[in-house]
Amino acid sequence: MAIVDVTVIPIGTDGPSVSDYVADIQEILVGFQKEGKIEFRLTPMSTIIEGNLPELFSVIQAIHEAPFQKGLQRVATNIRIDDRRDKKVKMEDKLNSVEVKRANR
Amino acid sequence: MAIVDVTVIPIGTDGPSVSDYVADIQEILVGFQKEGKIEFRLTPMSTIIEGNLPELFSVIQAIHEAPFQKGLQRVATNIRIDDRRDKKVKMEDKLNSVEVKRANR
Amino acid sequence: MAIVDVTVIPIGTDGPSVSDYVADIQEILVGFQKEGKIEFRLTPMSTIIEGNLPELFSVIQAIHEAPFQKGLQRVATNIRIDDRRDKKVKMEDKLNSVEVKRANR
Amino acid sequence: MAIVDVTVIPIGTDGPSVSDYVADIQEILVGFQKEGKIEFRLTPMSTIIEGNLPELFSVIQAIHEAPFQKGLQRVATNIRIDDRRDKKVKMEDKLNSVEVKRANR
Repeated sequence: MAIVDVTVIPIGTDGPSVSDYVADIQEILVGFQKEGKIEFRLTPMSTIIEGNLPELFSVIQAIHEAPFQKGLQRVATNIRIDDRRDKKVKMEDKLNSVEVKRANR
Repeated sequence: MAIVDVTVIPIGTDGPSVSDYVADIQEILVGFQKEGKIEFRLTPMSTIIEGNLPELFSVIQAIHEAPFQKGLQRVATNIRIDDRRDKKVKMEDKLNSVEVKRANR
Repeated sequence: MAIVDVTVIPIGTDGPSVSDYVADIQEILVGFQKEGKIEFRLTPMSTIIEGNLPELFSVIQAIHEAPFQKGLQRVATNIRIDDRRDKKVKMEDKLNSVEVKRANR
Repeated sequence: MAIVDVTVIPIGTDGPSVSDYVADIQEILVGFQKEGKIEFRLTPMSTIIEGNLPELFSVIQAIHEAPFQKGLQRVATNIRIDDRRDKKVKMEDKLNSVEVKRANR
């Protein structure tokens, strides 16, 4: 189980807003989630996705393709992978682990 | 007003857990927040901070220093800046904007 | 043809040096290059790899696995993808294009 | 002495090319370099800059501003900081260190 944090930046858009492209990507992610393959969460800066790493790479490729479907010719995608194998860590666990550390001080 | 998304990765830790370092960073951020300089939010993958860009650079420097205070000798910090100037956008606005786009389809 | 820029950060190493892990990754990349699947270049901060995007995802997965083979339990990998489809752009072209712009000023 | 790896992505450009913006940034960096404050190197994917960390933050702010000067309203800047304090490491040293590891196998 790994967690990835992804931003897909469409380049050459008409104006500064990109929320229409982000909405497309959310639809794609909802599809993968319904199939039980991933969990995901939208933050103000990126989308965080949790799943098996090979599955996550497929999902990343799918959302990276989305702006090209709308006619754009260039996309800059940024991915942070956090892959920990000594124990199964889910998105919530990471937040809780920090809170416990702070509470115990 | 800009929004930044920051991960501070301590290198050379004893074992895979880094939550103790993340807890330190949260304390520092609470301090800046109390002074009214920033808003911030912890996600499972990073910390998102909102404020004026010069202020944000000071904050980033401060949290990047934290692991060195604990004796580490190397830190890898990753920063994504989203700086939009045609309108004032806050963290919540970005999420809402995507939700509105999806609801209107 | 896409270009990716990858850093693989091993977490929980004994001390600040990670060059041994980077050397492993270079060996893996040389293997893929000999098969004619990619071109790559090491920079002081990352490895830049050029190839078809699905191939690049396989390569990224392979190098992300390397530190686990040495017994580490956590790896943080960071990937920037630049994917441009209006014309075939290779690594060298990008540098040349900036030089031409500067020379013509 | 730290090393940073920076991409400045202008959003809302007319078309997929951004080399004109990258050329502006190179001019700014040449200015800082002439003052003896930094060393830098352009790669096909980013600009790598070496210097003292507070200086580097000033430089990053300056190049992040460049696309706004050309009338754009949004810029996405991505920064990787590698800050090692057990020894003074320069850009070339990092590449050499990996080569030595590979040669000794």
